[in-house]
Amino acid sequence: TIQHIFKEIFKASLELQEDDHSKAMLVSRKRKQDDTIVTVKGEAIGDGQQRIIAGPCSVESREQVDQVAQTLKKQGIKLMRGGAFKPRTSPYDFQGLGIEGLEILKEAADKHDLAVISEIVTPHDIEKAVDYLDVIQIGARNMQNFELLKAAGKVDKPILLKRGLSATLAEFINAAEYIHSQGNGNIILCERGIRTYETATRNTLDISAVPILKQETHLPVLVDVTHSTGRRDLLLPAAKAALAIGADGVMTEVHPDPAVALSDSAQQMDFPQFDEFLNKLEESGLYKRGSVTAN
Amino acid sequence: TIQHIFKEIFKASLELQEDDHSKAMLVSRKRKQDDTIVTVKGEAIGDGQQRIIAGPCSVESREQVDQVAQTLKKQGIKLMRGGAFKPRTSPYDFQGLGIEGLEILKEAADKHDLAVISEIVTPHDIEKAVDYLDVIQIGARNMQNFELLKAAGKVDKPILLKRGLSATLAEFINAAEYIHSQGNGNIILCERGIRTYETATRNTLDISAVPILKQETHLPVLVDVTHSTGRRDLLLPAAKAALAIGADGVMTEVHPDPAVALSDSAQQMDFPQFDEFLNKLEESGLYKRGSVTAN
Amino acid sequence: TIQHIFKEIFKASLELQEDDHSKAMLVSRKRKQDDTIVTVKGEAIGDGQQRIIAGPCSVESREQVDQVAQTLKKQGIKLMRGGAFKPRTSPYDFQGLGIEGLEILKEAADKHDLAVISEIVTPHDIEKAVDYLDVIQIGARNMQNFELLKAAGKVDKPILLKRGLSATLAEFINAAEYIHSQGNGNIILCERGIRTYETATRNTLDISAVPILKQETHLPVLVDVTHSTGRRDLLLPAAKAALAIGADGVMTEVHPDPAVALSDSAQQMDFPQFDEFLNKLEESGLYKRGSVTAN
Amino acid sequence: TIQHIFKEIFKASLELQEDDHSKAMLVSRKRKQDDTIVTVKGEAIGDGQQRIIAGPCSVESREQVDQVAQTLKKQGIKLMRGGAFKPRTSPYDFQGLGIEGLEILKEAADKHDLAVISEIVTPHDIEKAVDYLDVIQIGARNMQNFELLKAAGKVDKPILLKRGLSATLAEFINAAEYIHSQGNGNIILCERGIRTYETATRNTLDISAVPILKQETHLPVLVDVTHSTGRRDLLLPAAKAALAIGADGVMTEVHPDPAVALSDSAQQMDFPQFDEFLNKLEESGLYKRGSVTAN
Repeated sequence: TIQHIFKEIFKASLELQEDDHSKAMLVSRKRKQDDTIVTVKGEAIGDGQQRIIAGPCSVESREQVDQVAQTLKKQGIKLMRGGAFKPRTSPYDFQGLGIEGLEILKEAADKHDLAVISEIVTPHDIEKAVDYLDVIQIGARNMQNFELLKAAGKVDKPILLKRGLSATLAEFINAAEYIHSQGNGNIILCERGIRTYETATRNTLDISAVPILKQETHLPVLVDVTHSTGRRDLLLPAAKAALAIGADGVMTEVHPDPAVALSDSAQQMDFPQFDEFLNKLEESGLYKRGSVTAN
Repeated sequence: TIQHIFKEIFKASLELQEDDHSKAMLVSRKRKQDDTIVTVKGEAIGDGQQRIIAGPCSVESREQVDQVAQTLKKQGIKLMRGGAFKPRTSPYDFQGLGIEGLEILKEAADKHDLAVISEIVTPHDIEKAVDYLDVIQIGARNMQNFELLKAAGKVDKPILLKRGLSATLAEFINAAEYIHSQGNGNIILCERGIRTYETATRNTLDISAVPILKQETHLPVLVDVTHSTGRRDLLLPAAKAALAIGADGVMTEVHPDPAVALSDSAQQMDFPQFDEFLNKLEESGLYKRGSVTAN
Repeated sequence: TIQHIFKEIFKASLELQEDDHSKAMLVSRKRKQDDTIVTVKGEAIGDGQQRIIAGPCSVESREQVDQVAQTLKKQGIKLMRGGAFKPRTSPYDFQGLGIEGLEILKEAADKHDLAVISEIVTPHDIEKAVDYLDVIQIGARNMQNFELLKAAGKVDKPILLKRGLSATLAEFINAAEYIHSQGNGNIILCERGIRTYETATRNTLDISAVPILKQETHLPVLVDVTHSTGRRDLLLPAAKAALAIGADGVMTEVHPDPAVALSDSAQQMDFPQFDEFLNKLEESGLYKRGSVTAN
Repeated sequence: TIQHIFKEIFKASLELQEDDHSKAMLVSRKRKQDDTIVTVKGEAIGDGQQRIIAGPCSVESREQVDQVAQTLKKQGIKLMRGGAFKPRTSPYDFQGLGIEGLEILKEAADKHDLAVISEIVTPHDIEKAVDYLDVIQIGARNMQNFELLKAAGKVDKPILLKRGLSATLAEFINAAEYIHSQGNGNIILCERGIRTYETATRNTLDISAVPILKQETHLPVLVDVTHSTGRRDLLLPAAKAALAIGADGVMTEVHPDPAVALSDSAQQMDFPQFDEFLNKLEESGLYKRGSVTAN
């Protein structure tokens, strides 16, 4: 029938258009078949081995960060996160230590031979951050802060881009393309939960995003289990799901004493909890600790 | 300060109320510590071993169901699903074979020594269905069809209850309580994706629902990977995530020839695809096929 | 270019398919240009004049319903609502008086010459309800209880169909089509808020649904301001918006003493509040009270 | 009973905390009872009279903006919008004329004695924009770009703040507080639809946000009918609902020739459509055109 013919033309036309668009995207798997591997101080992300990125929600003090760095080192973890510029809902909440926080991170990283990741929130600070950080994070609230993305695309430093609170995967991929289009292809994507009606978790972890992003792009994909669940008791199960479904790594928060943390106290692990988290993850067969090298 | 005292009283009061409520719920883990194990024709669901439930979206013919049953048997799978009463968005779409569909399912089940699961959509049919089915399914659209839940609570047959399209976990648990409150505690919960703004998948698989439901209730929890993703290419990754996070089993759709299926043709696997699905799931270490007994 | 041609064919094909589908729908404006007017005991809904439907959330006693009926009568309102079968999240909440509730409603309606609307929740009760009610309501939780819709399509009584908690407009229209396809075209649609992430209101009133439903179908469209907002302080503003955007009427809840109501106590108006609600609505020029006829 | 006492203490405690928090907010109605009126070139926003803000999605050329400015002038509209810095999903879409666009806007505003509003997307440009604009807009994607909000709080120029794509009202109010906390209290809030599962409209207009924002804050509240619906056929009904529910004004898009617009061609009105829009709005009694003064 005529309708059937139209349907076929319709489909063909649709695929044609989609193909063209995807091929044009620098981050697209159609443009580049091979996985992009982002190497940070010798640690590869996206090479098939699964990594943990951990650290406190906020950088609070030299001592706090040093304690975390030691713990990570002992656990064979190379990548430390910590917030210096903190985007907070209320202007009266702790806004982070800023540049001083970056200095503290760098000091600990140098001392313990770790790589550090921290969020930058203005185009203006991106250039400065290059001197302190191994990976620059762009947070969920800034995923469509396009000027920030463009600035991130102009520096020679890996970028960890988090999915926006309510971003579609298409928007997320386009945000990565903003960075890549400016020259910087060292991009790591990070699913961190989306906003839905469900209130049992802080956000809803969109676990299917992982295989879709791996199919659609050639970039490494992480899952932030802390912000996607907002519950300490769900960190381990969410990490298992993330690694089982093919994530290249998991991000989570560790603090020497979560009860006194200046932000997110309810969802950070203390050191014994973190040790147990890693043990159980190893037992599940989904993760292997890195070798602990002498400092 | 006075405010601090108020806060503490506030918290204590809140916990007190929540405790009382949860203790009152028959399905609550606080009421019964031990896992409920639902046994269906000798196959246990919720005993720590992970099960696959598979079959066509719709029962279409004797031959179709028999082919599926043979395949399941060969794969060491004991639990077959198939839709006889189909809730469809449009009144002009195929509505299922009804009672005849149940007869076809029973015939195949008897022949191949399988257990069968099918959806019932009116209180009136629940009693009839008892003669044909091993497990009665209540679908997502009927999760808050309370009269249907009450009817399901009055029969002596396991009930598989699917989460509603936009149900909170609290509503889901209360829906299970409707069944249990009428006397029937043989309930299996099934996460099947929730409705969000994201269109890359048919629904958004809320993977965190699994550990939360396991914590809050003592009931077995399955994940329907077909309806939560709506994409054949995501069935395997979603199944891995589900099993890794602690689901007691996975539900999926298999059809001898998906291209000609009367419903959901884009998301059902054919037999070779299903074989590969099971092989890869076994390779991942997250699943073990049941032993194939002679018929 | 070839791509441009494909795009045009694509669009033509799309429109062709959509046209065909819409034309096939009995509820579609393309099928029937004129507005459907549903007349209930001499009161027309959908004739261009705007109506109020009010009454208690639950029928609780003869006296309560009689007081409400008197009040409506005095206010020139002809249509009274009241819940006899109450779908409640928990099985331990008040479930309504059932058939007794319908009897109470009918008695008050007869005495005060009002029309009554009440929700029915099983196909089985639809036939019985015909003897008591002037309009049968199908509630949000049952919008895709297709067996109930089919039963409603077989009786000769107007049906008020509420939009499901997370139903798309396309699904809502198809649900109405289920009723119409069985022969009963006397259908009133009712927007009652959808489920979103926002918690400031119980649901999010999707006000744009009104003009879309009026365009796509020929059916009258109401807005339930009580359930869409869940806040007494928003009933008046929401009613103004509903009438301004073209709704054929507004549904709301009135109770002699909301504080002791067996359900929804926080969102029902008492009589003085209801009087003020109607006064302010009239002042805005968006509504005119009906004439009060001697009883 | 003890439980009842706890409940009462619970409620009292809750209110106490909420009160304290709201009182602390500079934008809160509890802090300042009187409505804030923002005056722009002699035109008051928030004084009880309802305003229209209109103009093209993107500034494309001197001629285009001049034509729009003339039209607005003739219609008695004082406030012109136009995008110079365009946040676009794809880096390959038209990104706006930037500073040149601001110059074009200023030129037209000077010539026709209009006030102009345009979006600024980096803290760095805020100071420059002060020379060109009468109102600085912060767009939905930047509602939680806190550095931008802080920069906006430091200039002496009214700020129009749009609600984020998936922002809660609490987050929206806190975003306004970021601006106010830096010294600038001349803030106009703008509801522009939220992201939900519904696809019939581009976003879902959360109409209840208007009365809630008017209650919770003392700031003027507008509704952007273009972005909340994304459909030209819904602009008029949405504007009626917005004005009926108490919005201080409506924002919409007008273009000399929408079909060739560089962005959002499907949702802008041409001049005759805009004229009809205003006529029908006046007929509804919800809006009065400003007096047309000789140029």
